[in-house]
Amino acid sequence: MVRLDRQMAFVTEVGKLKGVDRQTMLGGLGRRENSAEHSWHLAMMVLALAEHAPPGADLGRVLAMVLIHDLVEIDAGDLFLYADEEQQRRQEVAERSAADRIFAILPADQGTTLRAMWDEFTERRTPDARFARAIDRLQPMLENLAADGGTWRRHGIAAGQVLAKVRLIEEGSPALGELARKVVTEAVAGGILAP
Amino acid sequence: MVRLDRQMAFVTEVGKLKGVDRQTMLGGLGRRENSAEHSWHLAMMVLALAEHAPPGADLGRVLAMVLIHDLVEIDAGDLFLYADEEQQRRQEVAERSAADRIFAILPADQGTTLRAMWDEFTERRTPDARFARAIDRLQPMLENLAADGGTWRRHGIAAGQVLAKVRLIEEGSPALGELARKVVTEAVAGGILAP
Repeated sequence: MVRLDRQMAFVTEVGKLKGVDRQTMLGGLGRRENSAEHSWHLAMMVLALAEHAPPGADLGRVLAMVLIHDLVEIDAGDLFLYADEEQQRRQEVAERSAADRIFAILPADQGTTLRAMWDEFTERRTPDARFARAIDRLQPMLENLAADGGTWRRHGIAAGQVLAKVRLIEEGSPALGELARKVVTEAVAGGILAP
Repeated sequence: MVRLDRQMAFVTEVGKLKGVDRQTMLGGLGRRENSAEHSWHLAMMVLALAEHAPPGADLGRVLAMVLIHDLVEIDAGDLFLYADEEQQRRQEVAERSAADRIFAILPADQGTTLRAMWDEFTERRTPDARFARAIDRLQPMLENLAADGGTWRRHGIAAGQVLAKVRLIEEGSPALGELARKVVTEAVAGGILAP
């Protein structure tokens, strides 16, 4: 198959991410967020919050990482952040085999590059990946705040559980970690997150 | 207001793009595409189709352009590609005043940079902008093909009208222009686009 055919097959395949719903409710729209628009929102956050990235971060790479990070959900679906360990272990296996399939649709050189970027994001090995993961962790907190508690209320999540997840944000960006702690304080004060 | 507050106000504001529906129907999902997930799909196309960009194109800039290009629709809504000239003229005015408002939410330096990028995209002045516009023009054609004719059928669009729009794709990327012509031929042969 010529390169363009494989590239276009990938473009068509990834469109399916528009049909993968997340737990996150969109306040005001009264529906769940899908993983494609979530990925777009992360990319917008990278553009807006670039100056809070670690020194030396390559924003083009961070953008690519957040754009592709959820493609594996086309096969594996979205898993709730507070799922138990056994569910998380099964999800990791499913996501790796999804990555094997989906990135291989591209010409080999491109597939290898994007797969390595996905692995880097998943393993949080570099400053680029740590910043991308921080953004991915922060965005649903903002949506929950805007949606009157959203998944926190629906699943009975308490502030301590959220704060345990904030650590990963701090490791990617101290400024965004501080912001995330303020979001938790505000949510508890507003009665939409259990103390 | 401190910089981070303005950046976060922008992040919240742009989330509204998830609620702006386009004419494009998503084949298989049975619903319209929204402008946020559309913008994400364009960014994925930039990653997959990068080698078909004009020589010297800066893909980080092209990514930023496609990510922000539809933000003005938060105020101005989406206009169908085949709208008449009077509607298009009114849309241009509405989009410019939306750009004035939305990019000004950011700290001035960032707002100015992104606004200049949006102007560049709109005016199609540079190779980066021509490639970004080509991608934006190609994607709905692919969706129409996948959705059994989609907006072409619903609005009674004929092949000649589509081909007139393909010129802009050719100007951004000869390879993608050729691909777009094949899409038209295939759609006519399949009876989902009037000859």
